[in-house]
Amino acid sequence: MHKFAIGVLGASGYAGRELCELVARHPAARLAFAAAGEREGTRARFGGREVRFVAAEEAPLASAALVFSALPHGASAPWVTAAHAAGAKVVDLSADLRPGSGAACVPYGLTEHARADVRGAAIVANPGCYPTVTLLALLPLVARGLVAPGATITVNAASGVTGAGFTPRRELMFAEVADDFRPYSIGNTHRHLAEMRAVLASAGCDADLIFTPHLLPVSRGILATITVPLTQPLADVLAPWRDHYAGEPFIEVGEEIPSLRDVVHRNAVRLTATMATGVRAPTVVIVAAIDNLVKGAAGQALQNANLLLGLDETMGLPV
Amino acid sequence: MHKFAIGVLGASGYAGRELCELVARHPAARLAFAAAGEREGTRARFGGREVRFVAAEEAPLASAALVFSALPHGASAPWVTAAHAAGAKVVDLSADLRPGSGAACVPYGLTEHARADVRGAAIVANPGCYPTVTLLALLPLVARGLVAPGATITVNAASGVTGAGFTPRRELMFAEVADDFRPYSIGNTHRHLAEMRAVLASAGCDADLIFTPHLLPVSRGILATITVPLTQPLADVLAPWRDHYAGEPFIEVGEEIPSLRDVVHRNAVRLTATMATGVRAPTVVIVAAIDNLVKGAAGQALQNANLLLGLDETMGLPV
Amino acid sequence: MHKFAIGVLGASGYAGRELCELVARHPAARLAFAAAGEREGTRARFGGREVRFVAAEEAPLASAALVFSALPHGASAPWVTAAHAAGAKVVDLSADLRPGSGAACVPYGLTEHARADVRGAAIVANPGCYPTVTLLALLPLVARGLVAPGATITVNAASGVTGAGFTPRRELMFAEVADDFRPYSIGNTHRHLAEMRAVLASAGCDADLIFTPHLLPVSRGILATITVPLTQPLADVLAPWRDHYAGEPFIEVGEEIPSLRDVVHRNAVRLTATMATGVRAPTVVIVAAIDNLVKGAAGQALQNANLLLGLDETMGLPV
Amino acid sequence: MHKFAIGVLGASGYAGRELCELVARHPAARLAFAAAGEREGTRARFGGREVRFVAAEEAPLASAALVFSALPHGASAPWVTAAHAAGAKVVDLSADLRPGSGAACVPYGLTEHARADVRGAAIVANPGCYPTVTLLALLPLVARGLVAPGATITVNAASGVTGAGFTPRRELMFAEVADDFRPYSIGNTHRHLAEMRAVLASAGCDADLIFTPHLLPVSRGILATITVPLTQPLADVLAPWRDHYAGEPFIEVGEEIPSLRDVVHRNAVRLTATMATGVRAPTVVIVAAIDNLVKGAAGQALQNANLLLGLDETMGLPV
Repeated sequence: MHKFAIGVLGASGYAGRELCELVARHPAARLAFAAAGEREGTRARFGGREVRFVAAEEAPLASAALVFSALPHGASAPWVTAAHAAGAKVVDLSADLRPGSGAACVPYGLTEHARADVRGAAIVANPGCYPTVTLLALLPLVARGLVAPGATITVNAASGVTGAGFTPRRELMFAEVADDFRPYSIGNTHRHLAEMRAVLASAGCDADLIFTPHLLPVSRGILATITVPLTQPLADVLAPWRDHYAGEPFIEVGEEIPSLRDVVHRNAVRLTATMATGVRAPTVVIVAAIDNLVKGAAGQALQNANLLLGLDETMGLPV
Repeated sequence: MHKFAIGVLGASGYAGRELCELVARHPAARLAFAAAGEREGTRARFGGREVRFVAAEEAPLASAALVFSALPHGASAPWVTAAHAAGAKVVDLSADLRPGSGAACVPYGLTEHARADVRGAAIVANPGCYPTVTLLALLPLVARGLVAPGATITVNAASGVTGAGFTPRRELMFAEVADDFRPYSIGNTHRHLAEMRAVLASAGCDADLIFTPHLLPVSRGILATITVPLTQPLADVLAPWRDHYAGEPFIEVGEEIPSLRDVVHRNAVRLTATMATGVRAPTVVIVAAIDNLVKGAAGQALQNANLLLGLDETMGLPV
Repeated sequence: MHKFAIGVLGASGYAGRELCELVARHPAARLAFAAAGEREGTRARFGGREVRFVAAEEAPLASAALVFSALPHGASAPWVTAAHAAGAKVVDLSADLRPGSGAACVPYGLTEHARADVRGAAIVANPGCYPTVTLLALLPLVARGLVAPGATITVNAASGVTGAGFTPRRELMFAEVADDFRPYSIGNTHRHLAEMRAVLASAGCDADLIFTPHLLPVSRGILATITVPLTQPLADVLAPWRDHYAGEPFIEVGEEIPSLRDVVHRNAVRLTATMATGVRAPTVVIVAAIDNLVKGAAGQALQNANLLLGLDETMGLPV
Repeated sequence: MHKFAIGVLGASGYAGRELCELVARHPAARLAFAAAGEREGTRARFGGREVRFVAAEEAPLASAALVFSALPHGASAPWVTAAHAAGAKVVDLSADLRPGSGAACVPYGLTEHARADVRGAAIVANPGCYPTVTLLALLPLVARGLVAPGATITVNAASGVTGAGFTPRRELMFAEVADDFRPYSIGNTHRHLAEMRAVLASAGCDADLIFTPHLLPVSRGILATITVPLTQPLADVLAPWRDHYAGEPFIEVGEEIPSLRDVVHRNAVRLTATMATGVRAPTVVIVAAIDNLVKGAAGQALQNANLLLGLDETMGLPV
């Protein structure tokens, strides 16, 4: 089978390494380069084969059919431009080009909601981890006009520590995280809010959002518990998601309550919903879980890359 | 110093053992008996001294000035009656006599809100762990008429596994809990809701409640993240709690975001609050944390016991 | 491709479920039945497909080309006999037929050391998890006559809790295991010792063994740290293992110190060794790690099954 | 009660903070200063009171009756000299002045074995965490001439991550430590070996030592599993430790197998021993556990400080 050359910028972080591993095991791709300034010259194993990290400046961008950028927010955009100029398609995992960033408009790769746009694109902005799980949960309700106008949607999400990156920081050390649990960026101060609001607004959602992220003492996974005031009670509570995502290979809607272990190391979304009892305003409680490094980052990025390259969307993805 | 004889029924569970330890170290108490049917005849160490578990039927109820019942819900009420009939004061940690249970009315020992009632009582119903943290967070707002009438309050709470009891169950085994996180009793089906609703209603709260508990891969601690729609924005957002709990030895209000490690092994509540930005309905986000076995069970029970016995409320409590 | 029908007895425990998953994903096998008395009638998903557990008594043994028994020690032997009588090949994961058990002799499936015997067998006794890692580390030294005669080999091994089984027991509950670490069966009282001693003796090893297992607060993985007094210092310390295991697909010998994360979810052994400095008796320190449920149980069982069925030994195994 | 002024150098690391907390709660001490260059000007709470970190250069050494140095190895010695010159007694927690360091001789504060020397000293070298647990386990056998001459003692020890310090390093981040277990410094390359060997040699021990440390996915605690070839079998296996440590308040010898949870947050050593069965050379297996930050660092340092100040040795120590 023809193997597309794929390069990874920012290859030594958690998402970057996950990308390298996925590319190395992909049946129609080969890892053209793994660029990681900090680790230039060191080696790592991906797909059972040793790879040498190069500096981004030395990365042969023009040799790649597609480049993933897992560079930090702020540092990514110039490299996206450079890779694009070199003739590569680009999936940017940073926030630099996402909705709400103020930057030039490229398709937002929430794949299940943007498949057509992604297919024809040269550059795709890959969604953040919290926005992925939140928007996949909310958009079917928005699309059906079921969210009560002017209402406040409450999103409580908890993430494993790989979501906070690979740079050593005291608050991410084992003895600081173990046995603990805490929210952060409370009061709607998390930088992912702009992204979520922009996408919801462009989908016609008139509700407000209160988003509170939490840090879990686990390595991987995000679980979101979301309450949404509705225009009316749902008789068949799972119907909006079952209908919206019928045939979607990566979205699993069911009555079982999702947990992190259902989704880690898989490019999957698990979702359930139930109507809250004993409240006057009809309100649905949604629970959705993803692996923050797979469907929340590298997996979804590869899902988009498959579309950009004209491959089957599920190719090389762990289901 | 005079030492009150204090007995513990249901002494071998997590809360029961915490009670025995607190009693054994209490400067004005001694452990009169530790009753634990299942472990009758076995021994454990409390306060550095070995204690032999007896069957509840053999517990010398009449010898105790005060009896704690940490028996399971449903099994506790008859023993409360028996201990009371034997002349002991009783703190019941089960749900049998709590508001919302439908049972005969005894004071509800949310100590900071019921001090006067508790002092003169013969029997006190000790609050549940989730209700303790939730009600301590909400009641200052209710008392000031700040909760928007008819609004929906959202409570997302996460608890360590000791909250689920000491009986071996497959879903509580290490390999089933580690690396995972999941909600349970979603859609307002948790049995603590009746207790919370009854207390809020009797305090004049007209809002509805959506309560979603989660299981954390930690041993101890509960953290609740609560959103409350208000009648008006709070200029000094911490003022309701600072005013309400001024001088309270166990309630710590501050700007720092609480986490479990701030409260484990202490009879403390840590609380902060902030106004959500970017929403039309003025809404406060409250974060509060307790140790489920201390302020959420045995510690608060001892706080009540101190009042029942005419002792200083803080005596023998880890701050 | 032709798919062999493979049945699993004892399918609901940790090893049993791992077997079902491996069989369900195996390119040349299909899951003929999954028998689990306790869970009869319930369902689980293996390889993405729902399977209904049957009682062992109802398992269609005769329909299977091969049967795995993951039944408890003591209960397994009669079912091995029954499956064999029904015409199936059998891999028995229990200790019932292993060396040192006193039972009738069948090949001991430490695959890398018994490939020829396994190939022609009808029944194979699959090694225990601790013996697998210990024997794979020691046998190359024994085969070369390098172990000092009469010496004492010290094996300290630590295992994740899935090694202790799936039956709910208080000491395996999350709150009892988390944040803790402890040895058990100290002083050479672990039941795996007979198995290790019998295999070492039949390989001509004259040394004694002191084996101390420990329980780790992790779900999966075994790591053994082994000191072996030698007849002479090793100039090329890794040579015995590199030579012995040259070309072995599942054994990874290198200078890097192994850790659990190198081997979990893989049918791999990671091993390194170094000569201890500053001691008069030449002594090698070996470190070896496996996944207790894969190379230590279900993976090695499938490795043996592949040989029994005439398939490639690596087929269907996660490397 | 008179309160001795006690200062802490290196106050912001794990051991330094533990020291500050112990001093702040000590009935006969007050925290004179907490010096921590990196955190100069920031604040922390010790004993419920807020303390401002100063730079070591600004620490009022002369105002202190006693100074603890928890500075890094290599950086500590000059500050010990300075504090001594300023008139303070000093307990040095670094390795700079310990046996085997090649430095000038000061008493080695393994308190139970050096009480008389410590009492009259001006400066004490506080033992390392691994040496504390290892030497307390071995010295009673050495003192009785029970260790087989020329034998090899095997020490396998596992430590929680706080033993590796408070400086952010990638390999100490939560996602790198969780679910993992690995040895390090294998082959007798750990820097604590010189300290252990020097103390054992000066006690007349002729045996060799193989010491292998491991990193546990827990925050606190060290457990050592030690095999010692003996001159003869021990009829009463616990007698050497029971006799040697009779009346010692911090050493707990018993038949129960120690685990980390028995000792964390306490200045205790838990120890058991058993003769290995089925081996020709009589060999005892010892298991001993301590909290690396308490008896392995700050607790033992305070034990020594109490002696230096003429106080009761147990004062202010958590038992």
